[in-house]
Amino acid sequence: MIVPRLIERKRDGGRLEPKEIREIVLAYAEGRVPDYQMAALLMAMYFRGLDGGEMSAMMDAMMESGKKLDLSRLPMARIDKHSTGGVGDKTSLILAPLIASLGVAVPMMSGRGLGHTGGTLDKLESIPGFRTALSLDEAQKQIARIGCAMLSQTDEIVPADRKMYALRDATATVEVIPLIAASIMSKKLSEGLTGLVLDVKRGSGSFLPKLEDELALAKAMIDLGSAHGCPVVALLTAMDRPLGHACGNALEVAEAIDVLKGGGPPDLIEVTFALGAAMLVLSTAAATLDAAHALMRDGINSGKALLKLEEIVAAQGGDPRIMREPTRLPQARHQEIFTAKREGIVRSVEPRAIGYGIIALGGGRRNMEERVDPAVGFVITAKPGIHVLKGQTLATINAHSEADLAVGRSVLESAIVIGDSAEPPLPLVSHRVTARGVEQLA
Amino acid sequence: MIVPRLIERKRDGGRLEPKEIREIVLAYAEGRVPDYQMAALLMAMYFRGLDGGEMSAMMDAMMESGKKLDLSRLPMARIDKHSTGGVGDKTSLILAPLIASLGVAVPMMSGRGLGHTGGTLDKLESIPGFRTALSLDEAQKQIARIGCAMLSQTDEIVPADRKMYALRDATATVEVIPLIAASIMSKKLSEGLTGLVLDVKRGSGSFLPKLEDELALAKAMIDLGSAHGCPVVALLTAMDRPLGHACGNALEVAEAIDVLKGGGPPDLIEVTFALGAAMLVLSTAAATLDAAHALMRDGINSGKALLKLEEIVAAQGGDPRIMREPTRLPQARHQEIFTAKREGIVRSVEPRAIGYGIIALGGGRRNMEERVDPAVGFVITAKPGIHVLKGQTLATINAHSEADLAVGRSVLESAIVIGDSAEPPLPLVSHRVTARGVEQLA
Repeated sequence: MIVPRLIERKRDGGRLEPKEIREIVLAYAEGRVPDYQMAALLMAMYFRGLDGGEMSAMMDAMMESGKKLDLSRLPMARIDKHSTGGVGDKTSLILAPLIASLGVAVPMMSGRGLGHTGGTLDKLESIPGFRTALSLDEAQKQIARIGCAMLSQTDEIVPADRKMYALRDATATVEVIPLIAASIMSKKLSEGLTGLVLDVKRGSGSFLPKLEDELALAKAMIDLGSAHGCPVVALLTAMDRPLGHACGNALEVAEAIDVLKGGGPPDLIEVTFALGAAMLVLSTAAATLDAAHALMRDGINSGKALLKLEEIVAAQGGDPRIMREPTRLPQARHQEIFTAKREGIVRSVEPRAIGYGIIALGGGRRNMEERVDPAVGFVITAKPGIHVLKGQTLATINAHSEADLAVGRSVLESAIVIGDSAEPPLPLVSHRVTARGVEQLA
Repeated sequence: MIVPRLIERKRDGGRLEPKEIREIVLAYAEGRVPDYQMAALLMAMYFRGLDGGEMSAMMDAMMESGKKLDLSRLPMARIDKHSTGGVGDKTSLILAPLIASLGVAVPMMSGRGLGHTGGTLDKLESIPGFRTALSLDEAQKQIARIGCAMLSQTDEIVPADRKMYALRDATATVEVIPLIAASIMSKKLSEGLTGLVLDVKRGSGSFLPKLEDELALAKAMIDLGSAHGCPVVALLTAMDRPLGHACGNALEVAEAIDVLKGGGPPDLIEVTFALGAAMLVLSTAAATLDAAHALMRDGINSGKALLKLEEIVAAQGGDPRIMREPTRLPQARHQEIFTAKREGIVRSVEPRAIGYGIIALGGGRRNMEERVDPAVGFVITAKPGIHVLKGQTLATINAHSEADLAVGRSVLESAIVIGDSAEPPLPLVSHRVTARGVEQLA
């Protein structure tokens, strides 16, 4: 393998053979190919793309670089849900216990927030004592015992992907759909799944703002799953405004608990149930989407789903009393109501402005080294399209100082736009993509 | 400066500001920007190009990273010649002493062979004892004393360029015309020139095989020179066959000495004189090209040019007896005549095949660590278009073993094609490019 010749071929629009991709990825993971050659290759891939075979070889090599969760001896289906990232998106916190409470194993490996989007690990770690750094062995045992583990990507899982992802982040080569698909799927398939539901966010707050790119990513991941006998169902969901009300780590945990208690904002419930129904049908625990909805309602009404979250929290070292006493979650020193400056229609609640606003309050990170303050953030009850009166409550700011409250006000003033009329927001769940094709739902 | 944002902007077709380029190049030279980010930026530049301002800022920053030859106190003009690289191209070995013997200073900083092309330093080092690693101080003093020094790029000269060139070589990002122009000109302008003649090779054995690219490179270098008050004249010359007869380091030194003694192959003389005339007119030592030709003929016929080479060789530690006794140059153990297998017209003598053939005999390098055997190579008297009889001598192979002679035969069999007719070869000197535009000569 002469690396500059491989880079050159990709640069000039040629194709790399599966064994060439395997060789370069494994050599890179082992430090035998330097970062600078991989960076040049990744930038050439940015411009030239990867075909299905190249993408598949990339994913296979990343998986080969590490270990997998071995759940093959479990009697039940093993289903995970993955989101491309948004603001206020706490569906994982609800779905993991809810679906596990219905007899389906949920091995959920999540990430941290980066950019304007939040991350499930950061949210979980706002629970006092909660430990996400499980070993593969611990995770396997916990899943066998209680049906669910919520963990971070360990050093053992796809190390090539972790190394390459950090490089892509530093070299402006993140936005390559086949690389995104291979990166996500290498991790998900290492969980030993029998099915995966993918939540592809749409709209201004999403990572890929163009519908064609979102559909292409969904298709790429479905293809990669099919090649490994793991069916993938993708739902395209709205991220032109935050999902639910709470935006900020501990605030979102509290809202997820609300939903598991039968409460919570309707948009959050609708998206969560759509994803959960897809998981249950994939698992064959439900024969139809309607049956799946009935199962989930029962899981919540019976209290089993909340009990499952309590079990997970306790198993991973967290304080299970937060279920009954959510004020045991970290609290910001100041809460301030934010009200409408004028009467009108809410035109937009811009997720990127909210996401970066949380970072400004200390609740997100600018780089992987920064620590996150779990308590701060916003609870935004205003939704695009609603009519508001002057002085009406739009949101609550949660911050630690007067100065931060001022930052929060300024964030909300730019993020929440009130006008005389509003365009209709994106439908909450607009498309379903499966191996059979794209179905428009709304 | 947030490097991934700069990479991203270039990747997306945006423009980098001169101060941004300066900052990133200097930071890279000092190790504050890692290789992998520079590699990604260079690949983005491969796809997106650089505009004139970006190219100029790149060159200025590379020059700022190091020191320059200070020849400003010399009373005479200071002219160098640079070639984009070819096979059999020993014009520098002739021009440096010839032009210096006519009262023009020639500060000549050269490179080593890489790829199929030879390098002046390797040729000079075939002279027993010849030392090319002069310090800037040594070179300045030698130029003041005898009008010429032929040296390698020192650690002091444009270190950013050296570091970046090595990176480009390892990441398939060499072929970017503005980067090539900035790289060459940063070195040439660091020689303190008052004028530069550029030999842009054309045809199958050249580095840039498309005429439009050759003209673009010439124009880019002329523009960079103009911005620094250094006029540049570019000649486009033929590299669809080797230049002259000798191909191989010591063999080429011997042929250059032949020319300085009044002999040598006519094609080599024509190209050398065209380049030399441009140098002399730039220096104002000659008012016209005709006057320049007369000066050069006189320089050779009087023996002054040969004497100047002897002076240079002696000054740099080489054995000056090679002028009178060329057999003191390294000799291969075997010489073998290579003859025509059939009667016909020589259709082609392929320079790349010859160049790689020299490497196969040990006379070139596959990477910068390899040592070069100075004695081996070919003397090819056959030229495209000539009529040959079966059994007629086409070339001599110079090698160290019977096995290598067989390699040499196989190289020549593929490189020298005889047919029933031949396309006319490229004109030896086809275009002249100056700040005023392109002039077609033949």
